Amino acid sequence: MKKVVPLQNLITQFERLPGIGHKSAQRLAFHVLSMTDTQIEDFTAAVREAHSKIHRCEKCCDLTDDVLCPVCDDPERDAGTICVVENSRDVMAFERTHEYNGVYHVLHGVISPLNGIGPEDLTVKELIARLSDTSVKEVIMATNPTAEGEATAVFLARLIKPLGIEVSRLAYGVPVGADLEYADEFTLLKAMEGRQKI
Amino acid sequence: MKKVVPLQNLITQFERLPGIGHKSAQRLAFHVLSMTDTQIEDFTAAVREAHSKIHRCEKCCDLTDDVLCPVCDDPERDAGTICVVENSRDVMAFERTHEYNGVYHVLHGVISPLNGIGPEDLTVKELIARLSDTSVKEVIMATNPTAEGEATAVFLARLIKPLGIEVSRLAYGVPVGADLEYADEFTLLKAMEGRQKI
Repeated sequence: MKKVVPLQNLITQFERLPGIGHKSAQRLAFHVLSMTDTQIEDFTAAVREAHSKIHRCEKCCDLTDDVLCPVCDDPERDAGTICVVENSRDVMAFERTHEYNGVYHVLHGVISPLNGIGPEDLTVKELIARLSDTSVKEVIMATNPTAEGEATAVFLARLIKPLGIEVSRLAYGVPVGADLEYADEFTLLKAMEGRQKI
Repeated sequence: MKKVVPLQNLITQFERLPGIGHKSAQRLAFHVLSMTDTQIEDFTAAVREAHSKIHRCEKCCDLTDDVLCPVCDDPERDAGTICVVENSRDVMAFERTHEYNGVYHVLHGVISPLNGIGPEDLTVKELIARLSDTSVKEVIMATNPTAEGEATAVFLARLIKPLGIEVSRLAYGVPVGADLEYADEFTLLKAMEGRQKI
């Protein structure tokens, strides 16, 4: 059977996106066909605009459409505390807490020798350059609690401590609202070790 | 915190697509940022092109970018057997069997009084018009085995039978490869009723 080329083409394009399988790609493609002209215009414009306008913040390497990202550009934020994260989604997660008032540094990955990713592929140089500012008091390592995130945090801590800046790591423990029964043993062990007086 | 507008905009656009929640929309948006200029060009062009070029086949109402869809346009297909389906995805599903050699008729929905969808909202008129062609021998009802799909099949069968055309319905039974233990009682009952000698 000959295929309807523009439709197959669109399905293929959706299939290339992360987490979209063949069935989802089909569903998305059929949805596109049912959209109005204006909706199509808005959608493609949003894709193009985000792609062309967004780049890294000069200071923290987070994504922004300006010279500085909204956090670095905010004089109310405490520039003396830098929270080091793997990617922009992590920044969004911390911002949703509405409590953290420091700034961020986005590594855009973790050190991963198996995948050939070394410190030079991350924004480590930019982080060290920021620390020459004497106002920086503390760097919080907020890489993911995985082997690679852990190794990256240790690597960076070794670089930063000699500069006389305090380095801390996110607390490990049982997630709020979770059921202890389903927590893995490492998490429980860490939660025990980090127990606090009440 | 101020937001990065083009990024938020893109996330919102992805969230409007079916089956895409906030987290998936974020992941897709960040993926878009990591795409090359050419990939963005190809993606947006595919969206626009599919949307502007695809319309209904003059005969079977399936989607096509031509006057007739590839199936109706194929002289090898048996135009005397029409398989009535709810939507284009169902056509694709039958085509994947590589066995069915008749043609299709796409209803673009099912009769659903609860949702205010009557026969006039479907391509029923177009189906009846096709049946004036004396070469049509059989109409196979391949709407989904749901209450609404069933009701639509019965409704159409009542319209078509008086024209002296054979009307059939897809067989019910246990899906190939399924575990009987998990089959619901209606399916098992239908499978019993429809049992065949071996």
